[in-house]
Amino acid sequence: MKIEIWSDVMCPFCYIGKNNFEKALEGLPFKDEVEVEWKSFQLDPSLNPVEIKTTMEYFKEKKGFPEAQVKQMIGQVLQMGKDAGIEFNFEKALITNTFLAHKLLHLAKKYKKADKMEEALFIAHFIDGKNVGDKDTLISIAESLGLDKDEAQQVLASDEFNDEVQRDFSEAQNHRISGVPFFILNGKYSVSGAQPSGFFAEALQQTYNETAGKLKDISSGENSCDADGCSI
Amino acid sequence: MKIEIWSDVMCPFCYIGKNNFEKALEGLPFKDEVEVEWKSFQLDPSLNPVEIKTTMEYFKEKKGFPEAQVKQMIGQVLQMGKDAGIEFNFEKALITNTFLAHKLLHLAKKYKKADKMEEALFIAHFIDGKNVGDKDTLISIAESLGLDKDEAQQVLASDEFNDEVQRDFSEAQNHRISGVPFFILNGKYSVSGAQPSGFFAEALQQTYNETAGKLKDISSGENSCDADGCSI
Repeated sequence: MKIEIWSDVMCPFCYIGKNNFEKALEGLPFKDEVEVEWKSFQLDPSLNPVEIKTTMEYFKEKKGFPEAQVKQMIGQVLQMGKDAGIEFNFEKALITNTFLAHKLLHLAKKYKKADKMEEALFIAHFIDGKNVGDKDTLISIAESLGLDKDEAQQVLASDEFNDEVQRDFSEAQNHRISGVPFFILNGKYSVSGAQPSGFFAEALQQTYNETAGKLKDISSGENSCDADGCSI
Repeated sequence: MKIEIWSDVMCPFCYIGKNNFEKALEGLPFKDEVEVEWKSFQLDPSLNPVEIKTTMEYFKEKKGFPEAQVKQMIGQVLQMGKDAGIEFNFEKALITNTFLAHKLLHLAKKYKKADKMEEALFIAHFIDGKNVGDKDTLISIAESLGLDKDEAQQVLASDEFNDEVQRDFSEAQNHRISGVPFFILNGKYSVSGAQPSGFFAEALQQTYNETAGKLKDISSGENSCDADGCSI
């Protein structure tokens, strides 16, 4: 059973959603049959890669929100984070372009470490106040997961994995995804937003009951080869 | 819409199935929405990599088939090949271990050339009588598709892509696939064997009607971020 999750590093609900989703999955008897695929999404591709703003600056200056509204939003997300076991540090968080971080996610995916990379990027951005648009920062995150430093450097300095990131963006467009996190459950159901883990548990169970291992064979006749030869 | 196809290079019905499937797909109005993923399957992993046999030797010596039965089987497959536009050359074909060829398929997949690689491997094996277990032969096939010679060499000399090939085998086991070609149509239907292209056209149309772009949203509430900020 495949779960695709579109997410952006600078999206607090994506981090909350990840925690809630993983907590739900952990308690399900079929968890080992679930393949999670992290997909790239950029909330603000217009950010200049060398532009760095605090959360308050970003929403006031770039988005034109009144300070009181930003404070209220931050307060609510802080509380929801606490409920999900996350101590967001919005004072320190640095908002910048996340394209390079998404390239690193795809490098990690190649080595089956996309889960760990998502987590590491969220921690770097939301907890440690690191600049996830900075190449050296990203390379040291890659190293901390046991990825090869030179390969990470090469990926960030070249076009490598640009196509993979862009393909995730295109897929999101095809699915008319405008907000994240966005989950597609085995190609059947979609879930938008950081839902509670109880919700994810039920949704995963329902998807599993309805779709997993339920392939319907519609073949007519033989014409295949197996270990004993080819039958016609 | 995703179509997964398990196949082995030494399987004539896989080549026939590929032609029939592609002919069907070509005529469908939604062909650009279809993503084909080639998966690895080995009909005979027990073959020693340096062991090379003709088709007749293989079925007589390794499988213990009477010569008359092998001749009949070859005759039938030859005719089915002709009907699908393939001139099989079973006199020349060299049966050997296909694990290295599957590694090369996964290298090609990385560069979105898996379709072309499948075709090139079938032609090398079934038409040109090349030894697809031989590294130099495989490297020159990779080069002919515009892949990097050094990278192909490196993949064949190392463990690179072994995990990907093995994962395809495991998935096949999970789906209880014992013969190839085996098609999974958008996670809903399975088709075993080289069915006629008319069959594939109907099956693809039905799958498209029933599953493509038909995600059902089961979200409750918001808690997501979009270009305008985060809504709770």
